Amino acid sequence: MDPQTYMDIATVVTKLKMYPYFDIAHYILMCIAVRDDVVPQQGQGSPSQPFSRKHPLSSWLSSMLICFAGSIIANFLLGEPVITPFKDHLSILTATAVWYLVNYSPFDLIYKLSKFLPIKLIICILKETQRAHKVYHGVLVAAKLYPSSYLIVVIVGTVKGAGSGVMKNFDRLVRGIWVPGNNEILQPSFATKASLVASIIFLCERLNLIAVPHPLIYFGVVLFFVYFKISSVVLGIHDPFVPLENLFCAIFMGGMWDALRRAAIKEPAKEDENKDPRNDVIKSKEEKKKD
Amino acid sequence: MDPQTYMDIATVVTKLKMYPYFDIAHYILMCIAVRDDVVPQQGQGSPSQPFSRKHPLSSWLSSMLICFAGSIIANFLLGEPVITPFKDHLSILTATAVWYLVNYSPFDLIYKLSKFLPIKLIICILKETQRAHKVYHGVLVAAKLYPSSYLIVVIVGTVKGAGSGVMKNFDRLVRGIWVPGNNEILQPSFATKASLVASIIFLCERLNLIAVPHPLIYFGVVLFFVYFKISSVVLGIHDPFVPLENLFCAIFMGGMWDALRRAAIKEPAKEDENKDPRNDVIKSKEEKKKD
Amino acid sequence: MDPQTYMDIATVVTKLKMYPYFDIAHYILMCIAVRDDVVPQQGQGSPSQPFSRKHPLSSWLSSMLICFAGSIIANFLLGEPVITPFKDHLSILTATAVWYLVNYSPFDLIYKLSKFLPIKLIICILKETQRAHKVYHGVLVAAKLYPSSYLIVVIVGTVKGAGSGVMKNFDRLVRGIWVPGNNEILQPSFATKASLVASIIFLCERLNLIAVPHPLIYFGVVLFFVYFKISSVVLGIHDPFVPLENLFCAIFMGGMWDALRRAAIKEPAKEDENKDPRNDVIKSKEEKKKD
Repeated sequence: MDPQTYMDIATVVTKLKMYPYFDIAHYILMCIAVRDDVVPQQGQGSPSQPFSRKHPLSSWLSSMLICFAGSIIANFLLGEPVITPFKDHLSILTATAVWYLVNYSPFDLIYKLSKFLPIKLIICILKETQRAHKVYHGVLVAAKLYPSSYLIVVIVGTVKGAGSGVMKNFDRLVRGIWVPGNNEILQPSFATKASLVASIIFLCERLNLIAVPHPLIYFGVVLFFVYFKISSVVLGIHDPFVPLENLFCAIFMGGMWDALRRAAIKEPAKEDENKDPRNDVIKSKEEKKKD
Repeated sequence: MDPQTYMDIATVVTKLKMYPYFDIAHYILMCIAVRDDVVPQQGQGSPSQPFSRKHPLSSWLSSMLICFAGSIIANFLLGEPVITPFKDHLSILTATAVWYLVNYSPFDLIYKLSKFLPIKLIICILKETQRAHKVYHGVLVAAKLYPSSYLIVVIVGTVKGAGSGVMKNFDRLVRGIWVPGNNEILQPSFATKASLVASIIFLCERLNLIAVPHPLIYFGVVLFFVYFKISSVVLGIHDPFVPLENLFCAIFMGGMWDALRRAAIKEPAKEDENKDPRNDVIKSKEEKKKD
Repeated sequence: MDPQTYMDIATVVTKLKMYPYFDIAHYILMCIAVRDDVVPQQGQGSPSQPFSRKHPLSSWLSSMLICFAGSIIANFLLGEPVITPFKDHLSILTATAVWYLVNYSPFDLIYKLSKFLPIKLIICILKETQRAHKVYHGVLVAAKLYPSSYLIVVIVGTVKGAGSGVMKNFDRLVRGIWVPGNNEILQPSFATKASLVASIIFLCERLNLIAVPHPLIYFGVVLFFVYFKISSVVLGIHDPFVPLENLFCAIFMGGMWDALRRAAIKEPAKEDENKDPRNDVIKSKEEKKKD
């Protein structure tokens, strides 16, 4: 592609307004996530009547918490009022309208349409663009408040981009579901890891470690998000970071030392199944896949 | 009643000081609620020794959290220090004295007296007056902080009036009890709904949508709270909003569209039990009653 | 000991810098606590692979939360940003290095060394000195913010000194473990009670109720912490407050009135096992020991 055209597109993407289309795409995906997140429980959740019919208030609040999870958690961490997202009537009304259409549209039209692959792809592309925007603004806000605290900047950027994962446990609690054995920190999703990488890139840009014009960096992050989202939706590749992680874990997070120890204490190693250090990597890869 | 007399009474009610009598009534009801909220668990809660004997600290903190739940949650939402209620020594000491008398009075006198119907009625009337006062001041505070954010004003007003319900899950956690499948948002109590209505009324007053003198509105809300509390205590009518809610749900929250869908797809409807759309309403009414 | 020497030592102790040795001792103990806090669950926690190998991120965040629990909870209560401890890169890096060494050191050397009694004693002494320092600074900060709110000062001092206990439930949640039936308020540990006592002492000093030079009070608190920690590690005396508590409970928390009631209603008392009021004390003592 012609570099000038590329630069022009990048500049346009950088200046895109999120409201309404990108935000709506985000709300649609979040409301569908809340609707689909039904954990079967005894005596509850019979398929005859969906949750949204029985408990509209809980379904609404749960959807709002997930739609604005990034802001809520970032506000909580930074000591700002957590209720701030509810200040913006326009966003709340839009999110409420989306929630209503996703849950109660006649013949479940909106829900079914949103699940239809071509439309789903478009929504996902819009949503990933919005994610890049949120990560960037999270980094900006945190860098203003704590200019030299790189860790806080990265955490806030990540949380802004992938807050819904962190919020999930508490969001479920609103719907009367409690699954403590599973959370975003225990098994981070790809969205969280990608937001973390994007936060680090934006931070490096702020620190002048990357000598590339801002629109290019921003557009690169958007492409990175969109590319992996599409490969996840179309090809089913859920987490391209897993091999890197396994390698890292095998070297630094005990794998190497465990292998050394097994080499030193030879006798028990023979009886032990895991005498090959590479087994650990393969095993943990398998375990992650199961998750 | 003579309008002038009514107006005079209303003005007096508006200017009532909450401390000490109204606050004490509130503390009594809250401490009794904490004391009575025992969830039987395996290996615990044998009736030979009540919880307050085994874990006085936990019982005290739990009672304080519930007594000041409205302020604590409102402070949390608005980004104020959550510990603020503990700043007011007089309230804390009063609440502690009430907690002590409710849990440890000789021959359980205070507890039994408070459960005696005429006294219980008086306490409830005082408590409902205090609730109106708290809702009104919650609306005032939030409207000062966020003048044009009506949703926040209503949420803070509701939380101030009915914070104990929202706090209940976390309050139970302090006592080592965890019941995730039940919370105030999943099954809002009448107190929460009434506080919501009162918040909306006070907000409308602030926006000059109601052209009635303030004391009349305030007194009307007090009467509304007291009237329904008395009918709940004496007649056992727990939630007069249920018919309205069911109607609303039947029309807007899917009922209508579900009926339309069943009408459109006739064949499965015959086998389906719920072919009458009104059944949904009746069913959900029954389900709510069970809760 | 010569009073002048004692005073000189006290002054030195008062002016000790916490970073790095005292802080590192604290981090070591906290990281070991996180590593050892494994609750066996079905399908999880097989001893073949420890938690730190499977979920390094969760293990790290969990350790950080516990290492900085005092600050995080105090910030939350006082309405400050909870993320503040992550601002201090030096502390975070030190804590991360300690976490890495405790969990992944070759041949588990650091972990095993830290469990070796003489080294453990030294670490514990350093850690208790740091605890006194934290309690004192917690009291100072809270007393500046809320000069006349003694309750808040004591709560913040206690939380600063023994925050890890209060944080434990939420810290476990990060590791996917949820044990609601057990928390620091239900069964306060000795560290929490000692921090409470120390907070009250420092508060009394601030109010000029104790006419002793500051270094002596501070050094006294340090000795008090160290003495009871050593007796806990060496002699296994876990909670010297229990007899006092049981006496207090027997007199004020119902014991006396329960005895009176049993004396008044003689007939059921005969069938009742607990006719001797002293039984209650002994029983609750036994129950506390089981915990």
